[in-house]
Amino acid sequence: MKAEHINPFIRALVKSFDTMVGCKVRRGEIHLKGAEGTPYEVSGIIGLSGKAVGTVVLALSREVALKAASAMLMFEAEELDDDVIDAVGELANMVAGAAKAELAEFDMSVSLPNVITGRGHVVRFPSNVTPICIPFECQWGPLAVEVGLAPAPDATPAQAAAASS
Amino acid sequence: MKAEHINPFIRALVKSFDTMVGCKVRRGEIHLKGAEGTPYEVSGIIGLSGKAVGTVVLALSREVALKAASAMLMFEAEELDDDVIDAVGELANMVAGAAKAELAEFDMSVSLPNVITGRGHVVRFPSNVTPICIPFECQWGPLAVEVGLAPAPDATPAQAAAASS
Repeated sequence: MKAEHINPFIRALVKSFDTMVGCKVRRGEIHLKGAEGTPYEVSGIIGLSGKAVGTVVLALSREVALKAASAMLMFEAEELDDDVIDAVGELANMVAGAAKAELAEFDMSVSLPNVITGRGHVVRFPSNVTPICIPFECQWGPLAVEVGLAPAPDATPAQAAAASS
Repeated sequence: MKAEHINPFIRALVKSFDTMVGCKVRRGEIHLKGAEGTPYEVSGIIGLSGKAVGTVVLALSREVALKAASAMLMFEAEELDDDVIDAVGELANMVAGAAKAELAEFDMSVSLPNVITGRGHVVRFPSNVTPICIPFECQWGPLAVEVGLAPAPDATPAQAAAASS
């Protein structure tokens, strides 16, 4: 992925946490996501499809998920119940939605947000996709956005080159 | 979801396992998917978007994932390595692709397949979506297809009624 394709996801995460959660985040060092597990117990995941296809994963520690959802819901959430799951899904949806709006050349639409819970779960990407991990810190702990984009099966050569580079 | 929207996913799973894995499956009783965990350690997950949005989850026991991938790869896979992850992702992709082709009225495209691994992980859906679980048995153990569909945010009232009923 080119930097110009990564930056929309960074801006989308920062803005979504600012406006939805009222929380400033600090970005860490961008790196390639490997197959190893992450310390994140909660993953909001949403697909993108159009002239490129992809996935956005919003990975949160349990604490960050609960605190962010509490701020959105305006009550103190203590369990990963339906309300918290919906809040995390909505955050993932907002991040993906804001980023795809900036990536207009791929004319993508978003699918339904799902939320994976469970200690030690790993979200893997196809081996021909190089997903990027963008870690952040907020007042409640660590979070990350993981993004993988690939050419759509019916993309033109120019679109394919743009999505895969 | 209407039966006419569920049947394409059943046919897609049966056909994908038959042609890709060379394995006959036996369908169990269709039920609503709750928030509880499943016995499945491996979940292939892929988004759908168009006039409806949705997610298809191909949930496999570790044994079924390894054996199905082994049949596709033509060697004995013993770990959930990149080859197995790619094979499971490709199966999820085929199931979603075959089903969406039958559901032409929703004009959906598929996103990128991801594969979640980890004992005890749970794939949750937004609370306003009623996901359906279609369990199957094969010679190596249990598997399931979980599907949730919802109206796209910009769907017409008639499309919204079709996707949510």
